[in-house]
Amino acid sequence: MRRIVIIGFESAGLTAASAARMVDRTAEITVIERRPYAIYHPCGIPFAIGGEIENIQKLIEPAPMLPNVDVRTATEATAIDTGKKTVEARSLKTGVRETLEYDSLIIATGSYVFKPPIPGIELEGVHVVKTVEDGQAIIEALERTKNAVVVGAGAIGIETSAALGKRGLNVSVVEMLPSVLPGMLDPDMADPLTQRLRDKGIQVLCGKLLREIRGKGLVKSVGIGEEELPAELVIIAVGVKPEVKLAKEAGIELGGTGGVKVDDHLRTSSPDVYAAGDCAENFCLITKRSVLSQLATTAIRMGWVAGVNAAGGDATYLGTLNTVVACAYDLVIASTGVTTQVAEKAGLAPISARTRVMSRPRYYPGAEPIVIKLLVKSDGHNIIGGQVLGTEGAAERANLLALAIQKGMTVEELAKIEYCYAPPVSDSIEPLVVAAKAMLRRL
Amino acid sequence: MRRIVIIGFESAGLTAASAARMVDRTAEITVIERRPYAIYHPCGIPFAIGGEIENIQKLIEPAPMLPNVDVRTATEATAIDTGKKTVEARSLKTGVRETLEYDSLIIATGSYVFKPPIPGIELEGVHVVKTVEDGQAIIEALERTKNAVVVGAGAIGIETSAALGKRGLNVSVVEMLPSVLPGMLDPDMADPLTQRLRDKGIQVLCGKLLREIRGKGLVKSVGIGEEELPAELVIIAVGVKPEVKLAKEAGIELGGTGGVKVDDHLRTSSPDVYAAGDCAENFCLITKRSVLSQLATTAIRMGWVAGVNAAGGDATYLGTLNTVVACAYDLVIASTGVTTQVAEKAGLAPISARTRVMSRPRYYPGAEPIVIKLLVKSDGHNIIGGQVLGTEGAAERANLLALAIQKGMTVEELAKIEYCYAPPVSDSIEPLVVAAKAMLRRL
Repeated sequence: MRRIVIIGFESAGLTAASAARMVDRTAEITVIERRPYAIYHPCGIPFAIGGEIENIQKLIEPAPMLPNVDVRTATEATAIDTGKKTVEARSLKTGVRETLEYDSLIIATGSYVFKPPIPGIELEGVHVVKTVEDGQAIIEALERTKNAVVVGAGAIGIETSAALGKRGLNVSVVEMLPSVLPGMLDPDMADPLTQRLRDKGIQVLCGKLLREIRGKGLVKSVGIGEEELPAELVIIAVGVKPEVKLAKEAGIELGGTGGVKVDDHLRTSSPDVYAAGDCAENFCLITKRSVLSQLATTAIRMGWVAGVNAAGGDATYLGTLNTVVACAYDLVIASTGVTTQVAEKAGLAPISARTRVMSRPRYYPGAEPIVIKLLVKSDGHNIIGGQVLGTEGAAERANLLALAIQKGMTVEELAKIEYCYAPPVSDSIEPLVVAAKAMLRRL
Repeated sequence: MRRIVIIGFESAGLTAASAARMVDRTAEITVIERRPYAIYHPCGIPFAIGGEIENIQKLIEPAPMLPNVDVRTATEATAIDTGKKTVEARSLKTGVRETLEYDSLIIATGSYVFKPPIPGIELEGVHVVKTVEDGQAIIEALERTKNAVVVGAGAIGIETSAALGKRGLNVSVVEMLPSVLPGMLDPDMADPLTQRLRDKGIQVLCGKLLREIRGKGLVKSVGIGEEELPAELVIIAVGVKPEVKLAKEAGIELGGTGGVKVDDHLRTSSPDVYAAGDCAENFCLITKRSVLSQLATTAIRMGWVAGVNAAGGDATYLGTLNTVVACAYDLVIASTGVTTQVAEKAGLAPISARTRVMSRPRYYPGAEPIVIKLLVKSDGHNIIGGQVLGTEGAAERANLLALAIQKGMTVEELAKIEYCYAPPVSDSIEPLVVAAKAMLRRL
């Protein structure tokens, strides 16, 4: 009977357990998870802070019924011995230690929020947005807070800024790079989002560095470049780092990105040890470079592959386009593939075109603008990136572009796709086709 | 200087004119259109009847600015001479006749509503939904109408039934076939729509034949099978037929479907004569059979190809998946590829799976069910059909499935597509992936 041990029970670990269960019905599967509860949904936290989700405890769920999967919550993995093929575990409730033997091990330890080593970072009132407890602490801080500073304008930073704005706080969001959502959007595509945030009263400060956080015990203000902003609440959202301590101590090889190095079967350098999710290194399908893709959806896709292979099956993980969506107020911002900057750094010489169309015909009420930017390779015209911003249909269109990229489609082909039309949901020419035709006029 | 004549100025004719203009900047392009106005949007008519579009006149638009395109409205083409390469035209205002010489001719004469030859079909109060005038007449009839019968439960019939229901009428919709939207949906997928219509007070009568329409001058009732339904308003929506009179009289070959026969460049049997849109025969990419695909989107895609080729370019039209969407109340119903019945008739032995998922995570408010049915070939598991029903995202998902079918994707590949996730717009597992995985469990 195969013994499979999985460390970590978020998107990657949970999916790996289900996949392994499906491939090998008799395997004994043990999951070790530090949290006292089984499943939670981190991507919901900004919306619990904003109040769309009334009770943040709704983000916690019991483990799904998986036969013969032993989920040990409140249990910490303290060491991996790849020679003996064991994992040391310790109960956080009782302190009891145990040694688990594995035939296959899946490392799905996730990531931790990076806190820049600046003065004041440990002050009370400085929060991150990662766990339900983090979210709960921020919600509790709301009523004693007038001014909030969010550091980092990635998806979590933007969504949290909008959430705090909705709660009536005076919010500033600070980004080191020149524009918001820098990993997802080119600066010209970030502009409409910045404008929307400003219209809603959020102060957007790009190209500014967090220098220090000031206060005595409690945070009072934040030093940003030359400025000092009052703040009783500071959210650090500058990004997450792969949680690789266990793997590193076990002598498992890390990649240049800091994630656990894996091959196309998500095997690590150690026999029968797999890695999946935020802790693992990824591969950009366009630049062919090692990257980190710390998304729940990526973790799910990787978890599936690791689970199948750990259970004796054969699944391949080819890499990522980093397809991602963020929501702020009524705006939905989605992206897939590479941005202009990433493409240029990889020597891809992208050609791009930006198009603004209406989501519905002019004669039908409720039409809203949808902005699409396409990036293609100058030779061959294969699509390599898509950025979509609108009030509806943005995520779905990014998904279609992701499929188009995976299938090696050219912009000429995109201009000819088949689509459907009815005035309440779309215009007679699909916005992606309008965008493709706009691009063709440039080529 | 090339002389291009286009007969008809709806989706196909308009797109053909734009495409021809782009390919040959010096060509002299003449469009002949019977209507007194240039452009209108037939797909909007049910929503003008329903009141979503306040003024039906909004569906009329002036011709777009196309340099050197001479659009002659209120002008009828009366004959084509393929030997002399001329078109006879007559002004409906002045009666003046003219002979236009062409180097390339595009027949884009569209379709007409089929009226079954039954007693009473010509009574006052019997309407069709095709032109703005038709829509206007129905709107004017609303205030003197209590009971309406819609004959035909295709997209137009369903959308018009919902529209009349919203206006407070007592509405019955009658369909000869066993379920609603029979060209788009399998009966099990039609059920939720039938239920929604009934919940809204619409009487849905499937498997019933329209026998006769009764009245004296004005319609009073409709005989459906053994029943007699009171009706002061009858809408005939049993389908459209290709408008091919001119082509036929000119000796241009028709196909078995009744549409003008065309090759993959949309050339007809006559040299330098092209056909596009509702009047032309189409080709089903899955069954490889000749079909009619009388959709605005199909007409646009065909019009483009005909326009490019008529102007000396080289474009290919490969066929259709008949990707289509209809809207009734808050439901959006979309479909692409073949239904089970069509697949079986073509000997394709389809395997299907139906899945019901929520559009958003359970913890996020406003989650609505989305129902997806996939059809795959039993050998190879290539996707050949998709039916999607929901309150949002249905059209976009059908578009993604259309692309997947065009790219020859298998359901195994669909289960692994990359997608994005944020609680306000989607759950962590894309509904199409859930549907694909449900299918895989059956294979």
